[in-house]
Amino acid sequence: MENQEIQITYTTTEKPKPNAESLEFGKIFTDHMFIMDYSLEDGWHSPRILPYQPITLDPAAIVFHYGQTVFEGLKAYKTKDGHVRLFRPNKNMERLNRSNRRLCIPEIDEEFALQAIRELVRLEKDWIPTAPGTSLYIRPFIISTEPYLGVAPSKRYQFIIILSPVGAYYKEGINPVKIAVEQTFVRAVNGGTGEAKTAGNYASSLKAQELVAEKGYAQVLWLDGVEKKYIEEVGSMNMFFKVDGEVITPSLNGSILEGVTRNSVITLLQHWGIPVIEKKISIDEIYQAYKDGLLEEAFGTGTAAVISPVGELSWNGEKLAINGGKIGEVSQRLYDTLTGIQYGTKEDTFNWIIEVS
Amino acid sequence: MENQEIQITYTTTEKPKPNAESLEFGKIFTDHMFIMDYSLEDGWHSPRILPYQPITLDPAAIVFHYGQTVFEGLKAYKTKDGHVRLFRPNKNMERLNRSNRRLCIPEIDEEFALQAIRELVRLEKDWIPTAPGTSLYIRPFIISTEPYLGVAPSKRYQFIIILSPVGAYYKEGINPVKIAVEQTFVRAVNGGTGEAKTAGNYASSLKAQELVAEKGYAQVLWLDGVEKKYIEEVGSMNMFFKVDGEVITPSLNGSILEGVTRNSVITLLQHWGIPVIEKKISIDEIYQAYKDGLLEEAFGTGTAAVISPVGELSWNGEKLAINGGKIGEVSQRLYDTLTGIQYGTKEDTFNWIIEVS
Ligand SMILES: Cc1ncc(COP(=O)(O)O)c(C=O)c1O
Ligand SMILES: Cc1ncc(COP(=O)(O)O)c(C=O)c1O
Repeated sequence: MENQEIQITYTTTEKPKPNAESLEFGKIFTDHMFIMDYSLEDGWHSPRILPYQPITLDPAAIVFHYGQTVFEGLKAYKTKDGHVRLFRPNKNMERLNRSNRRLCIPEIDEEFALQAIRELVRLEKDWIPTAPGTSLYIRPFIISTEPYLGVAPSKRYQFIIILSPVGAYYKEGINPVKIAVEQTFVRAVNGGTGEAKTAGNYASSLKAQELVAEKGYAQVLWLDGVEKKYIEEVGSMNMFFKVDGEVITPSLNGSILEGVTRNSVITLLQHWGIPVIEKKISIDEIYQAYKDGLLEEAFGTGTAAVISPVGELSWNGEKLAINGGKIGEVSQRLYDTLTGIQYGTKEDTFNWIIEVS
Repeated sequence: MENQEIQITYTTTEKPKPNAESLEFGKIFTDHMFIMDYSLEDGWHSPRILPYQPITLDPAAIVFHYGQTVFEGLKAYKTKDGHVRLFRPNKNMERLNRSNRRLCIPEIDEEFALQAIRELVRLEKDWIPTAPGTSLYIRPFIISTEPYLGVAPSKRYQFIIILSPVGAYYKEGINPVKIAVEQTFVRAVNGGTGEAKTAGNYASSLKAQELVAEKGYAQVLWLDGVEKKYIEEVGSMNMFFKVDGEVITPSLNGSILEGVTRNSVITLLQHWGIPVIEKKISIDEIYQAYKDGLLEEAFGTGTAAVISPVGELSWNGEKLAINGGKIGEVSQRLYDTLTGIQYGTKEDTFNWIIEVS
C-alpha cells in the first residue's frame, strides 16, 4: 500500500475562494477530493485525487440502506509564516480503523491514509484561510458501495477525503453555551456503536437536538442508555467538569467517542499538575457539586470548537448557571494552549504537530 | 400531492429477466425506478419513473456522514391467474412516516406513495416471477441529499423506490434455522432508533451477525440494551414462542420494529382462538419453559421469510433444540395461511390485499 502512487487529475475550473469573514462550517468545499476503492479481489486500490465532483452510486448501494459507513474529522491550520500543519492526525487514523473494525469495514493503511491527507491538503493549501481561528476542515469517510439489499458487510467500498474551509468558531470572543441534559432520547448504549464514528449515532441524535433547540439550547448532554444517570458526552464533544479544584471527565466506557481533543486536554492538565480524573460521573454528582457551590467550570472538547465552555446546564427543570456564564480559567488556558500549538504560536511540547508543507 | 402526475421515462434497453430458479435476494433490479425530490421551498415534488440508474450525490450529502435515512420493505405477489397483489402496503407507508418522524425527515403523503408503488409495480409486472414462493421485493427509501457537514436535518431529500425479483425463501420445504442469543452486542435501546426502520440499526448489527455466522448460526437474537435480559427481535424478524399452548411475543417497547407480519400473525391467532399475548419476555422464562418441556415452538416473522421456524436456540453455552428441529403445527398453519392470502389461494378475510392491476 505504502508504495501506491496517488494519481492526480487537476481541475480545469478553479472555484473562487470564499471570504474568510463569511465562512460557515462545512458548506463550501475545495477544488479537489481524494478517492480510493476497495474490492475483495484487490483490497484498497486506485488512490487518486480528482476535481471535487459528485459520487455516482447504484440506488441499492448498502450505505443508503444499512448505513455501513464511518468517518473522521480533523483540521489543517496555517501558521503566520505560511506553514501548514495537522494536529495529531495519526490519532484520527487510528480511530478510523477502530470504527472500521466495529462496522466490519476493511481496515485502511493508516500511514497511507495520512499521506493521502497530506498530499490533498498540500494541493489545496491556498484554500486554507488565514484569519485568526479559521482552518481547513478535513473529512475522511468510507462508504459501502455494493448494490445489495441483504444485511451483510459490503464487498465494495470507497474511501473519500473532502476539504472545507471553516470560519472561526468564536467570532467575538468565547461565548459559553447553554446545554440541556437529555432525559428521553438516548444516543448510544454499551454494546452498540457509540465509540465508533459512524453515521447512525448522529442520525439518532437529530430528534433530541431539534427539541432542545426549540427551547434555546445549543446542544444536548447525553446520559447513558442503561440507567439514564451517567454523563456521556455532548453532540460532537466530550465533557469535562471542574469540581472543587479537580477536573473530571467520563471514562471511556464503550459508548462515548474517544476524542482527540479529550486526550490532549487530559495530557495538558496532567502536565500542568492539575488533578484530572476519568470516571463514571452521575448527573446527580454534578448537581450536588453545583448546590454546594463547587462546580467551578464545565466545558466540551472537540475538533470544531476546541474548548466550548458551558454557561448553563438545564436539568430536571432547573437551570444551573456555571461560573456566572463566563469562561473559566482552566477552560481559557486549555483553549489558548491548544490553539497556540495548532497555529504555531506556542511550543509543541508533545510532538502533536505534523507539518504538511 | 394526490394530484401530482408521475412523469414516466421508459427505458430503451430492457434487461434480460433472470431465471426464477437462480434468484437470490436483493441482487437484481428491474428496468425502472421511482424518484421524487424534497426541498424546503417545494416540499415533495417532481415524482417520476425513470430507467433504473445510478444516483448522483455530492460527496458531502448528509446521508453519507450522518445517516439520515429511512426505508421500507414489502412484496408484490402474482397469483396463478396473473393478478398482481400487495399485502397490507398501507401499513408500510404508515411505518415509513413513523420512521420519518423519528429521523426528522419530512413526512410523505402515504396515499401518493402507495400510488407510486402501484404504478411502478404495474409497469414492471413482467418482472414478477411466478414460480411458487417467488415475488417482487419492493424497497422504498428516503435519503438526505443536502451537501452539509453540520449535524442537522437535511434541507433536501430523495424518495426512491426500487424493485428486485426474489426467489422462494424455502426452496426445499421449510427448514428451521439455528439462532444465537447475543450477549455482548446491542442493536437498539429505549430512547434510541430501534422502532424506526433506519440504516444505523442495521449497521450496528453487522458485527454480532458476523461473529455468530462463524459458529454456524443463521441469525442473532437480540436482548434489550438495558438489562440484557429481555427478548427483542431477530435480524429482520419479530419473535414468537409457543409455550404450553399459548403464543407469546415481545410487546412493542420502543426498541423493536413493529412488523407488519407480526401484526398479521397476532390477528390470525386471535381469529383462530389461539391465546396470544404481547409482553416482556425474559430469556430466562424461555429457558425455564424449555427445561420444563413446555417450549413447543419458536418462530420469527418478517416480509422476507413470512414465518421462519427456529430449530435451535443457543444461549449461555447451551443449545436448546425446539420441537425436534422441525417446524411446529402453529408455525406451519400461519405460513400456509399468510402465503395463501398473499398468492390468492386462500380467502382474504381481513381485507389485507390491495390489487395492483
Ligand atoms: C460524538 C463525538 N464525541 C466527541 C467528539 C470529539 O472528538 P475530537 O476531539 O476527536 O474531535 C466528536 C467529534 O469528533 C464526536 O462526534
Ligand atoms: C428489525 C426488523 N424487525 C422486524 C422486521 C419484520 O417486519 P415486517 O414483518 O414488516 O417485514 C423487519 C423487517 O422488515 C426488521 O427489519
